[in-house]
Amino acid sequence: MSEFDFIKTYLAPLAGPEGLGLLDDAALLYPPAGHDLVLTKDTMVEGVHFPSPAQKMGGARGADTAERLIRTNLSDLAAKGATPLGYLLSLAFPRDMDAAYRAAFAKGLDVAQQSFPPLKLFGGDTVVTDGPMVVSATLIGTVPTGGMVTRSGAKTGDDIWLSGYIGDSAMGLKHVLSQKIEPAPTGADIWHWEEAYLRPEPRLDLRGILRSHATACADVSDGLLADCGHIARASGQGLSLNFGHISLSEATHRWVYKQADVVAAKLALLSAGDDYELVFTAPKTSRAALQASHTKAKPLTRIGHVTDGQGVTLRNAGGDAMDFGAGGYAHF
Amino acid sequence: MSEFDFIKTYLAPLAGPEGLGLLDDAALLYPPAGHDLVLTKDTMVEGVHFPSPAQKMGGARGADTAERLIRTNLSDLAAKGATPLGYLLSLAFPRDMDAAYRAAFAKGLDVAQQSFPPLKLFGGDTVVTDGPMVVSATLIGTVPTGGMVTRSGAKTGDDIWLSGYIGDSAMGLKHVLSQKIEPAPTGADIWHWEEAYLRPEPRLDLRGILRSHATACADVSDGLLADCGHIARASGQGLSLNFGHISLSEATHRWVYKQADVVAAKLALLSAGDDYELVFTAPKTSRAALQASHTKAKPLTRIGHVTDGQGVTLRNAGGDAMDFGAGGYAHF
Repeated sequence: MSEFDFIKTYLAPLAGPEGLGLLDDAALLYPPAGHDLVLTKDTMVEGVHFPSPAQKMGGARGADTAERLIRTNLSDLAAKGATPLGYLLSLAFPRDMDAAYRAAFAKGLDVAQQSFPPLKLFGGDTVVTDGPMVVSATLIGTVPTGGMVTRSGAKTGDDIWLSGYIGDSAMGLKHVLSQKIEPAPTGADIWHWEEAYLRPEPRLDLRGILRSHATACADVSDGLLADCGHIARASGQGLSLNFGHISLSEATHRWVYKQADVVAAKLALLSAGDDYELVFTAPKTSRAALQASHTKAKPLTRIGHVTDGQGVTLRNAGGDAMDFGAGGYAHF
Repeated sequence: MSEFDFIKTYLAPLAGPEGLGLLDDAALLYPPAGHDLVLTKDTMVEGVHFPSPAQKMGGARGADTAERLIRTNLSDLAAKGATPLGYLLSLAFPRDMDAAYRAAFAKGLDVAQQSFPPLKLFGGDTVVTDGPMVVSATLIGTVPTGGMVTRSGAKTGDDIWLSGYIGDSAMGLKHVLSQKIEPAPTGADIWHWEEAYLRPEPRLDLRGILRSHATACADVSDGLLADCGHIARASGQGLSLNFGHISLSEATHRWVYKQADVVAAKLALLSAGDDYELVFTAPKTSRAALQASHTKAKPLTRIGHVTDGQGVTLRNAGGDAMDFGAGGYAHF
């Protein structure tokens, strides 16, 4: 199947009017009045950001890779308080990639679009490579004029809030990579973790809360400690986190508390990344409103506060600073 | 050098205010009032779209690759009649890429930005790959509301116009790939061709002409015949081209007319691509204005006309249709 046939058969049906039927080399966007545009771009490499198709596993299938690419990029928009509009794709497919994998990839895009309306494909480029698959998406979203949440607005005395749980995706990746998980978890826990890894939920539902309360926000992609570090650096502040306040899901809690060194096991998860939850700062005056938004199914947890100084400090229940090493994933 | 250090040292100085110092995961764009946004995305793979750094040649250096990436993407904006604003980058660098190559790559971006103000870096993502380098750029431009030139507006009876010359870049690529060029050209001709390949000139200068006259336009990236095919398909029309009217530069003309089969040699160049000139259609009423815009240094040549029917027909001086095979480059 040629490049043009692949685009016509599989990608053109995913295009919004902005994509001009994918017959053009460009997309045309009429920016909605009263809004700013938010642009994000994330790239994934086979064997680095997702398992190689050669590895037998659900995670290796084309549909999963495509869905994860879109979901993780949407997470960047969620962290800005933005509403997604559409995306452009760059697909470098291995020369010998089979047609079924390509078709499945397009199916995964379709599923992602249906999960997050009105998201549509605007355009992109499809090429071959002699190396591993490299896929990249540029996501475009909108915020009301002046309403984007940055990483740079944290102020001394702000609370630090975390949505959801940390660590499920890292546990899912262990499973996808066929790493031994001991003691052996239940099938239900494995399923829970695998879903967290394969289909992370971009927290677009928190848009209203972020726009009303957040002074700074990041999505947890590099690891909670590293992403707090990004906020600290961009804001020129320190972030002090309470180790005990950072919540784990029931499945992950169960596993961590069976480990010989519970603290080390939890620390590793705080540095692991791929959670795609949101960590944000908000003034103390927002505390009651944010506590009222907390539910068991979708927790919002206060995990620390913003200080003078710089960097991230992690404190145990006694208030002592804990050593957590580099604490985050650098892509090279 | 870590990902963060590379971004801070080499990329952050290239960022516009939209890039938020590259400390954020997103770019923030205030769309200019009275304008639409035009988005394009092109991807290049080492060994496919540019020579591998292992090959000895100017074309392999990081700065050349970066400059070419930006210039070819700008060409897509030029074909839309758009004014460039900025770009997002996706860089998948080989794990063992040396620091000098990365620094040179950033330098090439800098040179490109200075060549096309007010172009600035808005953001992106930098990752490692175990395969060849894959780089992608999303370019963002503006047109006055409703003013974008598409590929789909060609009408029966329109003239077909070509800017500049075809084939210089293909000759340059032969040289960069160390392919034998016989009979041996002069050093000046080689220099001319190599520049055309390494530093194609996006025809942003034709913006006003396109907006005033063009009914459809494409940049010549896949090959003149293939790109005319894109216009034919998107417009639902036929394009009839006069073989003899398609001009060659003096250097390329000199070489072609020394070949045993002059027609075959020229035909190969019309299918070769990478010219980054513009081919566009315009009504007959624009003919005088377009002829008046022609200069020897920057030619505008009438090379055919739009017909009913479909596809591209290439005619010799006697009016007979010529066989040109597939006539264009498909990326897989």
